[in-house]
Amino acid sequence: MVNNVCVLGAGSTKYGKLSQSIIELGLDAAKGAIDSAGITPKDIQAGYISNVFGVADKQVHMAPVLMSNLGIPHVPGLTIESACGSGSVMFREAYANVAAGFYDCVLGVGVEKVTHTGTTLSTTLFSYCSDFFYEGGNGASFPGLFASIARAYLNKYKATEEDLAYVAIKNHENGLLNPKAHIRKSITVDDVLNSPVVASPLKVYDCCPFSDGASAVILCTEEFAKKIGNDYVRVIGSGRGGSPAAVQSREDITTIPSTIIAANQAYKMAGVTPKDIDFAEVHDCFTIAEIIDIEDLGFFKKGTGGVAAREGITKRTGEIPINPSGGLKSKGHPIGATGIGQVVEVYEQFTGKAGERSVKDAEIALTHNFGATGASAAVHVFQKV
Amino acid sequence: MVNNVCVLGAGSTKYGKLSQSIIELGLDAAKGAIDSAGITPKDIQAGYISNVFGVADKQVHMAPVLMSNLGIPHVPGLTIESACGSGSVMFREAYANVAAGFYDCVLGVGVEKVTHTGTTLSTTLFSYCSDFFYEGGNGASFPGLFASIARAYLNKYKATEEDLAYVAIKNHENGLLNPKAHIRKSITVDDVLNSPVVASPLKVYDCCPFSDGASAVILCTEEFAKKIGNDYVRVIGSGRGGSPAAVQSREDITTIPSTIIAANQAYKMAGVTPKDIDFAEVHDCFTIAEIIDIEDLGFFKKGTGGVAAREGITKRTGEIPINPSGGLKSKGHPIGATGIGQVVEVYEQFTGKAGERSVKDAEIALTHNFGATGASAAVHVFQKV
Repeated sequence: MVNNVCVLGAGSTKYGKLSQSIIELGLDAAKGAIDSAGITPKDIQAGYISNVFGVADKQVHMAPVLMSNLGIPHVPGLTIESACGSGSVMFREAYANVAAGFYDCVLGVGVEKVTHTGTTLSTTLFSYCSDFFYEGGNGASFPGLFASIARAYLNKYKATEEDLAYVAIKNHENGLLNPKAHIRKSITVDDVLNSPVVASPLKVYDCCPFSDGASAVILCTEEFAKKIGNDYVRVIGSGRGGSPAAVQSREDITTIPSTIIAANQAYKMAGVTPKDIDFAEVHDCFTIAEIIDIEDLGFFKKGTGGVAAREGITKRTGEIPINPSGGLKSKGHPIGATGIGQVVEVYEQFTGKAGERSVKDAEIALTHNFGATGASAAVHVFQKV
Repeated sequence: MVNNVCVLGAGSTKYGKLSQSIIELGLDAAKGAIDSAGITPKDIQAGYISNVFGVADKQVHMAPVLMSNLGIPHVPGLTIESACGSGSVMFREAYANVAAGFYDCVLGVGVEKVTHTGTTLSTTLFSYCSDFFYEGGNGASFPGLFASIARAYLNKYKATEEDLAYVAIKNHENGLLNPKAHIRKSITVDDVLNSPVVASPLKVYDCCPFSDGASAVILCTEEFAKKIGNDYVRVIGSGRGGSPAAVQSREDITTIPSTIIAANQAYKMAGVTPKDIDFAEVHDCFTIAEIIDIEDLGFFKKGTGGVAAREGITKRTGEIPINPSGGLKSKGHPIGATGIGQVVEVYEQFTGKAGERSVKDAEIALTHNFGATGASAAVHVFQKV
């Protein structure tokens, strides 16, 4: 590794059920990132895209189309897929290439467009991200798999469905302050508990929505960032890990091994411990996931993540704010974009652009994003400059 | 860049219309690569997959499934997509990570499984790799786009359909010596010229087949390779480039800018010129593509690539053998695997495993692989050790 790497700019579309094409969404986010960085497309030496189901909007091989539309057709690009963790894995590859000195400045665009296919086809497509031979192919969709995980967790740690509800309530509260969030609506414990059951014990309000959207970042060397002269955020830790692909193959399904591996790598590289993290954006595709994440990331002891949510410790104004953006639960989950959207939040928090949802006195932040039921995960640590 | 990078092992399934699942194909190739390298799965620190249409076999997020089946579930993986150029772009990312010192030893697996969807759906899916708004969406499939390119080339350089035929004849000759080739059949000029027209001037024998298949390589530092003690091949040059995504946006459609950019980068890095290349595996999805490739790569002057084929200069025993493996035309084109399959050929040629199709006295080789109509391309240069 030869270079310090920074996030010099970030942009995002609104997340939600959107009418634009996948290319229009990607371009919108990319232009936002380029503008906020204060660079021009000609400064970009490579394009990294994260996307899972381009096929749903009939555009695969997206990088050349995006680069061409940005007026830089000769710049090489590629697409990275790692299910719902695609964004963070793409970020890691872009990071690695800049750190290694292959490029000084690259564009990372995460994008997804699926809502037009409808809930049934989306659920089917998403199930292809499971270990399909064992899971999706036998009818185990992601709500079902996370329901099994939730049931095991509630049993093992005597946690309650109410604990899960507090995660949803908090993330909806945060999302209310995020103009780009998909679901901006205040909810109560009763709303969650009385919402229709999706896969017991998970109810509608325990599940993140299917979203369209795009998020983009400019990654560059610190030298390049200083030359441009705009605010930037330093990337100080990066880690990746894997878990047995099928949930049934794991020894303990109330923990996600890939998160622990990725976090330990990232903490070690950054020279920090969980106590040093001032806020985190974590992968809350279902409420149970956030509870498991914040334990696996080392913020809370195993079995106490639910208590943390209930007691308000993870609120935006609590001891360790989790998902100040609203998370996947409220901000939304355009799967290829999600991991990059987390970095956008860190950039906005650390450069004074988070408005009402700003986390006070934050200097070190973490992003955590996984694929499927955590078969793959990536963790990054960022420092305010 | 801190490390010299090597290919220590390589494996491949047969290419063709295959009955195994996409995961079975990937595992088969991966195990071949691991065995030939003389390592065990535990030596692998990361898995790089290249694939475009996993969705066609209902398995996206393939890396965790492959890693789990290899007994190394905690090793992180990812999938890279760049249409028909996915394999070489994945190879470049794996290369970059080893060169930069992030990993000592990684597995690269290219895989595709599409033939079960039939020719019509495959053609439709593949068209999503074009600039769909301008091309696929208006009915311009890849045979049609390459037919436009071929027509322009024949007109501009007074080349003939017979010139194109000689590319097919040569690659079929080479493929006859490759036990893993999809189409092993000797053909004549008359066979090609009298075969059914697909999109004039391209006929059936000007087109590569839709194939299933997988190819895999082990990439590692030279230090690691020496420690293992088996034969290896050194990677000495790597380059990537882009072209305007839609063919209609290019100034001259008889040349592919991304090839020229990628080749110049790779030559410069390797410290070689086109004259130093002893053989090359190039992207011959259609016969016209090989003719344009060998010009853009600097082996022949513009407009003379067809003459080169007709005069036998690019035969396996000619001055500059092109596609000794049989190329996409005869060996086959499982799109996510193709670029890695080219590296497998270089490895087998340089480690005495190419049998009857060995190229005499070769020491420097090149691989060239592009996506779509060349919207993306990657070139690598290899040295026999």
